[in-house]
Amino acid sequence: MSLLDRPHHDGSPLYLADEAPELGSSVVVRVRTSGRDPVSRIWLRTTYDAEPTYHPMAARQPGWWEGELPVHNPVTHYRFLIERADGSQAWLTGVGEQHWDVSDAFDFKVVTYPPAPDWARDGVVYQIFPDRFARSSAADERPTPAWATPAGWDDTVVFEGTDPRTPTQFFGGDLDGIVAHLDHIAEVGADIVYTTPVFPGESNHRYNASTFDHVDDLLGGDAAYQRLSTAIHQRGWRLLGDLTANHTGDTHEWFRRAQGGGPTRDWYYFRPDGGYETWMGHHTLPKLDHTNEDLRRAMIEGPDSVVARWLRQPYDVDGWRIDVANMTGRLGAIDVNHRVARILRATAAEQREDPLVIGEHNHDAFHDIDGDGWHGTMNYAGFSWPVWSWLRAEQTDARPFGRPVAVPRRPGGLIRKSLDGWRARFGWRASTQSWSILSSHDSARIRTLVRDPATHRVAAGLQFTLPGVPMLFAGDEIGLEGVNGEDGRRPMPWHRPEGWDRVTLATYGALSRLRREHVALRRGGLRWAHVGDDELVFLREHPEETLLVAVRRAAGPAIPLDLPAGAALLDHEDFAGELPAAAGPAIRIWQLASP
Amino acid sequence: MSLLDRPHHDGSPLYLADEAPELGSSVVVRVRTSGRDPVSRIWLRTTYDAEPTYHPMAARQPGWWEGELPVHNPVTHYRFLIERADGSQAWLTGVGEQHWDVSDAFDFKVVTYPPAPDWARDGVVYQIFPDRFARSSAADERPTPAWATPAGWDDTVVFEGTDPRTPTQFFGGDLDGIVAHLDHIAEVGADIVYTTPVFPGESNHRYNASTFDHVDDLLGGDAAYQRLSTAIHQRGWRLLGDLTANHTGDTHEWFRRAQGGGPTRDWYYFRPDGGYETWMGHHTLPKLDHTNEDLRRAMIEGPDSVVARWLRQPYDVDGWRIDVANMTGRLGAIDVNHRVARILRATAAEQREDPLVIGEHNHDAFHDIDGDGWHGTMNYAGFSWPVWSWLRAEQTDARPFGRPVAVPRRPGGLIRKSLDGWRARFGWRASTQSWSILSSHDSARIRTLVRDPATHRVAAGLQFTLPGVPMLFAGDEIGLEGVNGEDGRRPMPWHRPEGWDRVTLATYGALSRLRREHVALRRGGLRWAHVGDDELVFLREHPEETLLVAVRRAAGPAIPLDLPAGAALLDHEDFAGELPAAAGPAIRIWQLASP
Repeated sequence: MSLLDRPHHDGSPLYLADEAPELGSSVVVRVRTSGRDPVSRIWLRTTYDAEPTYHPMAARQPGWWEGELPVHNPVTHYRFLIERADGSQAWLTGVGEQHWDVSDAFDFKVVTYPPAPDWARDGVVYQIFPDRFARSSAADERPTPAWATPAGWDDTVVFEGTDPRTPTQFFGGDLDGIVAHLDHIAEVGADIVYTTPVFPGESNHRYNASTFDHVDDLLGGDAAYQRLSTAIHQRGWRLLGDLTANHTGDTHEWFRRAQGGGPTRDWYYFRPDGGYETWMGHHTLPKLDHTNEDLRRAMIEGPDSVVARWLRQPYDVDGWRIDVANMTGRLGAIDVNHRVARILRATAAEQREDPLVIGEHNHDAFHDIDGDGWHGTMNYAGFSWPVWSWLRAEQTDARPFGRPVAVPRRPGGLIRKSLDGWRARFGWRASTQSWSILSSHDSARIRTLVRDPATHRVAAGLQFTLPGVPMLFAGDEIGLEGVNGEDGRRPMPWHRPEGWDRVTLATYGALSRLRREHVALRRGGLRWAHVGDDELVFLREHPEETLLVAVRRAAGPAIPLDLPAGAALLDHEDFAGELPAAAGPAIRIWQLASP
Repeated sequence: MSLLDRPHHDGSPLYLADEAPELGSSVVVRVRTSGRDPVSRIWLRTTYDAEPTYHPMAARQPGWWEGELPVHNPVTHYRFLIERADGSQAWLTGVGEQHWDVSDAFDFKVVTYPPAPDWARDGVVYQIFPDRFARSSAADERPTPAWATPAGWDDTVVFEGTDPRTPTQFFGGDLDGIVAHLDHIAEVGADIVYTTPVFPGESNHRYNASTFDHVDDLLGGDAAYQRLSTAIHQRGWRLLGDLTANHTGDTHEWFRRAQGGGPTRDWYYFRPDGGYETWMGHHTLPKLDHTNEDLRRAMIEGPDSVVARWLRQPYDVDGWRIDVANMTGRLGAIDVNHRVARILRATAAEQREDPLVIGEHNHDAFHDIDGDGWHGTMNYAGFSWPVWSWLRAEQTDARPFGRPVAVPRRPGGLIRKSLDGWRARFGWRASTQSWSILSSHDSARIRTLVRDPATHRVAAGLQFTLPGVPMLFAGDEIGLEGVNGEDGRRPMPWHRPEGWDRVTLATYGALSRLRREHVALRRGGLRWAHVGDDELVFLREHPEETLLVAVRRAAGPAIPLDLPAGAALLDHEDFAGELPAAAGPAIRIWQLASP
């Protein structure tokens, strides 16, 4: 039996009739089995207030079993007990079949809370680090602030953590610079612009805000932000802000008042000796205390909060990416993280019809994305590291992010285990609402990691075809490099187009178009068709269409696949029963003739 | 490389210097590696307010790596990143080495809350169903209540759920009957007596209490309970009560008042139509609402609560087994389960120096036993079902419990995966504090499941040698049978000793003695030495001694094991480098000459 003969379920429409059913209702769930597999009975097992209960499933038509899942809890867990003709039993969970009695760790889950808005699930995110994206002519008029080390647009980026210029080197990109290059973003095919912070802060990254009340004048101030917001919305696009809910800068007005003994003192964690809690020991980043109601009202809760105000005019952001969301509201024995996420999302929902809140978590966001808080996370764990470890060059200058050593190079089978394990851990819906990232302002650039352009394009192929929302760090599309997050923040070389990798830029554009045009890429399920050391081949299946995606990291021979014929969606041959041989890294996408 | 060459860590003293370190302190953790394994570096990885952080470990002496774990959160997660000479990387988690990038699902954890009391971890629990254990002569004087169907001690137990006599058949066992047979319990080697409920209730099981204020007169009333409690404590033993925190009977004084519109109405979940929430649809078992403060004060919170009062004279119980602990405080979108557990434990701790609270959960108690609530659970999931599925007879009348079909017969390798998976899921400490159960008043009898006495003794061998506290359902020790929980509640045949399986009784006695005498069985770590379809061989390791345990479910040839010589602790040959051949099911335990 092949991979495609294995019993399958996921949270996509073919398998789960309603991705956000009402509490107290029931929802139809389906399992697909192969005629070659002697399945005799299947039970749907769920927990009802933590008590396991079983519901027999019926074989409605060849290859499809159906059952009714009572949606008794806001997050209802379920899985399947499969009995075969020989009396053997297996559990079908989010990590596939398991032939021993397993815990609920990888149960499927259905969530009654509303999903992320459609625009956030169907779009492509373009991440901009304002100081390095583009400079308008107005930038020349602005005085350089005292904290900054001025740099010319072509200067080499200082990126060693030990160099004091790393956070102060100032290139002077601004918001009108972004407005001037929206056509470029359109060429990439992105339609959600996410900028890292725009609040004043004494650094080039601005994650150490001095105030949340207005936009940094160095970026053009509130007026420039409004121009950006208007221009983006005029294109029908969306705009995301970036908020440090965990901490402020030590130059922040709240913190200065707190140090003076003012009423905001209880918004931070001051110790009796005058010291205070910080983000990871950085004294410039004092940690906020979300158990304090006044702080919550200033920051995240209700119409006067920072979260709410920016969702209204003149800023009009469509949602927030929450920095350090994983640590927010957590300190030792204190853990109000989930409460913060829930409040923040509710505040956003009161301001706009369809806001997005994405929580940064560079590892296991499982506890934090079960449906009523963050819609999803920056999915380094479940996308970036597996893809990095499949595609990394044997020798690369790219430095590790999130662990002390670089990810090792691993074969396709282990990559699949990792992708599946994380998707199961987060759940289908939260996984598909999370961001698939190849590079960010915090990591090395994908180009530096994989080194060769063809492999870079394979990585982009996975970013746009695996479940999840592509988030592209500006510059990836033209092949910018960087050994770590700081080095990757290189200014966009607008004036040196001859150095751009135009083939890769065109690939991103084509992939964005495909994702927009094909619902199976946005909302379809995922079934593996073939996994080899150097090949990952999978179906994206939706009631409306089935796509076959095949990526290779290396040259390889043709591989027969028992699937119907398919029409090529990129510039390659049609599918006719075999994955064609390839001379090197390759990505192919077909629309199959029948599901 | 053999199983013993694999890197190892668990929560036992050889690997974790303090099982309950203070919040804010640090604790030494160790990993054992083999000289045959080219490990080059190991990092200890933990999460700090949910942020992954890495700490390099040092090879302190051959085969032992050591690191310092900052105990930053009350439940601090950790695992290990192992790099080998070839540049490959693996994660060492609670389920062993994983060669892809995994989630935190099976991280090790260290808990700052106090562990279960020593008596509860070092003892052996004997479960008594009072109506069926023993009758004192006083029982003859008591009138049969109206709800009861009288039965003679030798009558056949009615056990079909469809038969209305199943809950009413009344044999009349009582508390003085238990007092009269404490010598038998001593022969088994148990020292913790746990009785199912003793509150008045209109059924033989008494899980539908009519009051929590006194002991059922049919059992001898409060005076008899005091005699039992005194007799047990005089032997230096402990006594556990059984409390339905989730519901009462519909005859309960609180519920009757509630139905009359009294102030206790809000202690239950009445619907506008006069209906009410129940346990699993049984109208005789109305569900309690723990969001109601008055209910909490009556039931679980503070010195006047049921929980507290019974921990004092005249009852003087040493702790509680909480019935349906998994569902308590959970209903749809409401979930105050953890809060209930925490409050209940705190109440108990205010009454006695060292109370135990064990929560019933017939499946995945992971969420509920992380340290400040229930000390552990009835470990059906992590012990009973794996052992059942290794040892069940091909043909058995035993009926399933907890799933719609009987557990299948599985080979040793899958049993190990299940045992390891659950131990990782619950964490070492909570696992070792949980109860290892072969039969209970809710399940078929182990003897009926395995059919043959020698296999029954192998099961008992696992019950006393795998991590966890043995809980023995009265009658297992003499080979009582039963196809389901109700059938297993057969009266103890005190007057027909000729039918007792005395070999098995002696085995339980010997195993209890071994567990008491050998700290490695009570507190040692667990490393697998050999796993075959029909053999499970493992070390229990403690700084003071190392034991080797070998169980076989079938005949098999000798198997060489690269371990030092060992002295036999049961009636079998010493160990001299090989697991001896066996003609059938067998259990052997050796104390090795050196660790």
